[in-house]
Amino acid sequence: MLRSHTCGELRKAHVGTEVVLSGWVQRSRDKGGLLWIDLRDRYGITQLTFDESKSDAKVLETARKLGREFVVQAKGLVVERYSKNDKLPTGEIELEVTALEILNAAKTPPFIIEDDTDGGEDLRMKYRYLDLRRNEVRSKLEVRSKLAIAVRNYLADLEFIEVETPVLIKSTPEGARDFVVPSRINQGQFYALPQSPQTFKQLLMVSGFDRYFQIVKCFRDEDLRADRQPEFTQIDCEMSFVNRDDVLGVFEGMTRHLFKTIKGVELDKFPHMTYADAMEKYGSDKPDVRFGMEFINLNEQTQQKGFNVFDQAELVVGICAKGCADYTRKQLDALTDFVRRPQIGAKGMVYMKCNADGSYKSSVDKFYSQDDLKGWAAKANAEAGDLVLVLSGDKNTVRKQMNELRLYMGDALGLRNPNEFSPLWVVDFPLLEWDEETERYHAMHHPFTSPLLEDIEKLDAEPGEVRANAYDMVINGVEIGGGSIRIHDKEMQKLMFKHLGFTDEEAKAQFGFLMDAFEYGAPPHGGIAFGFDRLCAMFGGSETIRDYIAFPKNTSGRDVMIDSPSPVDENQLKELGIGLS
Amino acid sequence: MLRSHTCGELRKAHVGTEVVLSGWVQRSRDKGGLLWIDLRDRYGITQLTFDESKSDAKVLETARKLGREFVVQAKGLVVERYSKNDKLPTGEIELEVTALEILNAAKTPPFIIEDDTDGGEDLRMKYRYLDLRRNEVRSKLEVRSKLAIAVRNYLADLEFIEVETPVLIKSTPEGARDFVVPSRINQGQFYALPQSPQTFKQLLMVSGFDRYFQIVKCFRDEDLRADRQPEFTQIDCEMSFVNRDDVLGVFEGMTRHLFKTIKGVELDKFPHMTYADAMEKYGSDKPDVRFGMEFINLNEQTQQKGFNVFDQAELVVGICAKGCADYTRKQLDALTDFVRRPQIGAKGMVYMKCNADGSYKSSVDKFYSQDDLKGWAAKANAEAGDLVLVLSGDKNTVRKQMNELRLYMGDALGLRNPNEFSPLWVVDFPLLEWDEETERYHAMHHPFTSPLLEDIEKLDAEPGEVRANAYDMVINGVEIGGGSIRIHDKEMQKLMFKHLGFTDEEAKAQFGFLMDAFEYGAPPHGGIAFGFDRLCAMFGGSETIRDYIAFPKNTSGRDVMIDSPSPVDENQLKELGIGLS
Repeated sequence: MLRSHTCGELRKAHVGTEVVLSGWVQRSRDKGGLLWIDLRDRYGITQLTFDESKSDAKVLETARKLGREFVVQAKGLVVERYSKNDKLPTGEIELEVTALEILNAAKTPPFIIEDDTDGGEDLRMKYRYLDLRRNEVRSKLEVRSKLAIAVRNYLADLEFIEVETPVLIKSTPEGARDFVVPSRINQGQFYALPQSPQTFKQLLMVSGFDRYFQIVKCFRDEDLRADRQPEFTQIDCEMSFVNRDDVLGVFEGMTRHLFKTIKGVELDKFPHMTYADAMEKYGSDKPDVRFGMEFINLNEQTQQKGFNVFDQAELVVGICAKGCADYTRKQLDALTDFVRRPQIGAKGMVYMKCNADGSYKSSVDKFYSQDDLKGWAAKANAEAGDLVLVLSGDKNTVRKQMNELRLYMGDALGLRNPNEFSPLWVVDFPLLEWDEETERYHAMHHPFTSPLLEDIEKLDAEPGEVRANAYDMVINGVEIGGGSIRIHDKEMQKLMFKHLGFTDEEAKAQFGFLMDAFEYGAPPHGGIAFGFDRLCAMFGGSETIRDYIAFPKNTSGRDVMIDSPSPVDENQLKELGIGLS
Repeated sequence: MLRSHTCGELRKAHVGTEVVLSGWVQRSRDKGGLLWIDLRDRYGITQLTFDESKSDAKVLETARKLGREFVVQAKGLVVERYSKNDKLPTGEIELEVTALEILNAAKTPPFIIEDDTDGGEDLRMKYRYLDLRRNEVRSKLEVRSKLAIAVRNYLADLEFIEVETPVLIKSTPEGARDFVVPSRINQGQFYALPQSPQTFKQLLMVSGFDRYFQIVKCFRDEDLRADRQPEFTQIDCEMSFVNRDDVLGVFEGMTRHLFKTIKGVELDKFPHMTYADAMEKYGSDKPDVRFGMEFINLNEQTQQKGFNVFDQAELVVGICAKGCADYTRKQLDALTDFVRRPQIGAKGMVYMKCNADGSYKSSVDKFYSQDDLKGWAAKANAEAGDLVLVLSGDKNTVRKQMNELRLYMGDALGLRNPNEFSPLWVVDFPLLEWDEETERYHAMHHPFTSPLLEDIEKLDAEPGEVRANAYDMVINGVEIGGGSIRIHDKEMQKLMFKHLGFTDEEAKAQFGFLMDAFEYGAPPHGGIAFGFDRLCAMFGGSETIRDYIAFPKNTSGRDVMIDSPSPVDENQLKELGIGLS
């Protein structure tokens, strides 16, 4: 190695040792015949010193030529520092340099490579390889690497086998969001990239693999919204001979293990909440339960009092913001503006303050007496000093709106502490959801999800009421993972496709291979897939591929490696047997 | 769980316990009122027993309905067996079944799911999910999974960070073997799939990542020859501030660790052999050194004796096959036929037998005296009873031919024991190789490989003589991994591109991003990439993706998931903005 130690390694115990370090020049000071250089590598920073009265002239000359980010190799003696730096692990020592070699020069970097950089986002993205030198950015990738290894070891210890399923797969007719990949060899034929290894892993269960996992790239060719990337990473898992609680137990254990070993956080047992409860209490299937502020149904308290808006509403729903009765007009207007944003879409907001003197003040005072308002307060458990915020309308719509308002208030009141973690399982999702556009039911998770046995009889008459044996792991309002017990019976799978509007022929053409496999001894099985990018984000790692690794950009400033494809050569297209139409 | 134990778990210590097992019916015997069923899962086989005189009538009825590969759940009491089966780890016990449930019925499988199956390859490929139930096939994937985890833990312990580089990357003009991926969003634009993360990992070194690895899929759109797959897996690694021997040390350590922990094999220190020596002694840059039979240069001994074929040859080369002097005419003819095969292409073969009586017999006796032949024998270290085989011709051609003959003889003489492992490093590869077709030099590894410093001066006058700081790990004649110390200096990289026939503009267009990065403080670095599929094969795991996971085939018998793309819907192409030309 071009070093004997790293720049993060030397301590007082090394004093008197001859060492060789290699790294980057972080900064230098040249004062009164003394020269100090901070030498940096991934592991830390060590101070190099030079002294006009002692150092070799050539070494000193070289040292004075060094600019920021030069790569150098320094040989010298470890000595104790006069003035210690207790912010640095190496702060008790420094290196008296006796030999110095420039391994590579560097242009002045376009921004400062420190925790606190002066580089704007565009510049840092353009010179991503320099931004990645910063501790903050690099540590995200380190966390990701550690998490992946911890996941693998945890699951391997439980006898899970990691199977790498193919990336170039059969292109199936349904794949409207599949990336397709033309083949040079079989002209006019295409592979697809997998959106998930769902059917692969189910076939592995048919194969008796019993416990499978994979940390795997998945692909989706759709609009690059903020939270969608064309490629993303899943921890994909499947188990045989399991009930729902077996799956939840294993992956709750895994998640608890990760929090403990990587973050030092002990998580309690994860509570279970039904989808119905989550929607009723939080207006969301991924509730942030770090704080309460649960929804209060105020229909009974508010309707039939002459206020038309509430009377006509399917649901009048409130939340109680503790200690917010002193909100000013301006603050309340800001809340109203918030819920009126087009992406939220409420027409207005009603508030009620619980004054310190026991009186109530609401924005709809003319319809409600003090006694009426007292009734609201009682239902909402609101006490003097609290503020009740009320929205109304169509049940599904108003719940979504109130969910946004609740999260907004949670942020405003500092109730969403990023260092606190509140996981839960949301269970009993609906099997099907009605799609207005296509006017038919779609599978809420995917068509392989098993219905709850006790609900199967409702499939014909009340398909929207049938619950699935499906579950999501939610932490701090983020859906970290989701899965289900699967259908393992051919007839049940056919029935499901029928209810999803597939003809027998369509079902056979797309998923015949799986249904055929079910006839040769498919075990009961179920699984889960975690969004690895989201999990990493929860641990302070990167959230998306674009976040964590964006490589050199072209001159237009677009990130050419990740989210912008480029034109290909005409000849290359010809060779592929395709052209631009 | 639908079981309390697995089918491989129960021992004598469990006798008297009530247990629940789930698994597949492997086979059953029904004889004299007694019924035995072997229940199988991934972990083993347990014998279930039923007794007409004791068992519940309904349980017995169900048991008699079971066919092969039915999935069942059996509850019962663990009892000691009368006749133990010492071939099974569970052979001391059996389960007296008290409750039995069919979890899923199965059609009669198209072949027997046993180690010794009656299924032909086509049938087993068609029903791959059934073939994967066989221990032999499943264990290959288990080995692969174990190897991957062992690699990750070994490298993580050495502070390597696993970084997942993007799969959808920028399409570069040179990528004649790149798969291209049209984008729905940016019509007429394409991503490429990476042939390797080479430039990514070099940028990570510029970023100061210091130690990077990744087990990563790579893609190459080219003819599907036997040993080439469109997707394959690499263990990709890179280190900063290293010399060649640092890289070799780390990865020799890793390989030794894998052999020890996964196979229980202790490997000696890997010898180093130069490329020049490997070609001279074995005619191959991946010599199988499990056996000697090194090449003997016989130019001096054979030329100028009137045998035109030898006189005109650039190289006359022999190998000594110990104890083969008794080869019959037929055996010798077979060897001649072998070297004359079109894919080998020799015109003929000369032999010389060292007879027991001290005399020599050769196929070219009329040109050579006994004394001449004695000279051959002396050079070849051939003793009475040995056979010397000789080929001649153009040096490069005849070495390749002799390499084939040597390996053939090694097989014939049982010298290539699959349970013996002889690793070595081949070093000092040529930097450039002449390509007859394009009439210019190509990079033998890739254009980022550093030349040996002492050879740089030859770049202009004798480019073919310049050695690279490149190395391959070879085990048993298989190239397991290869890498090099890289160029980290912009000017050197430009010089390299110039020698590869790139104009400055071409080099800048394709690799400008990397050369620009070199200007901002690139550390000396080097690395290696292992063919993970080949490494797995060496450990008894699967070699190629097609080997280890081939999913349901279409009716034409082609493996639709892996190696055959399919037509896409016309509308899908339209949506992508491309058409068939």
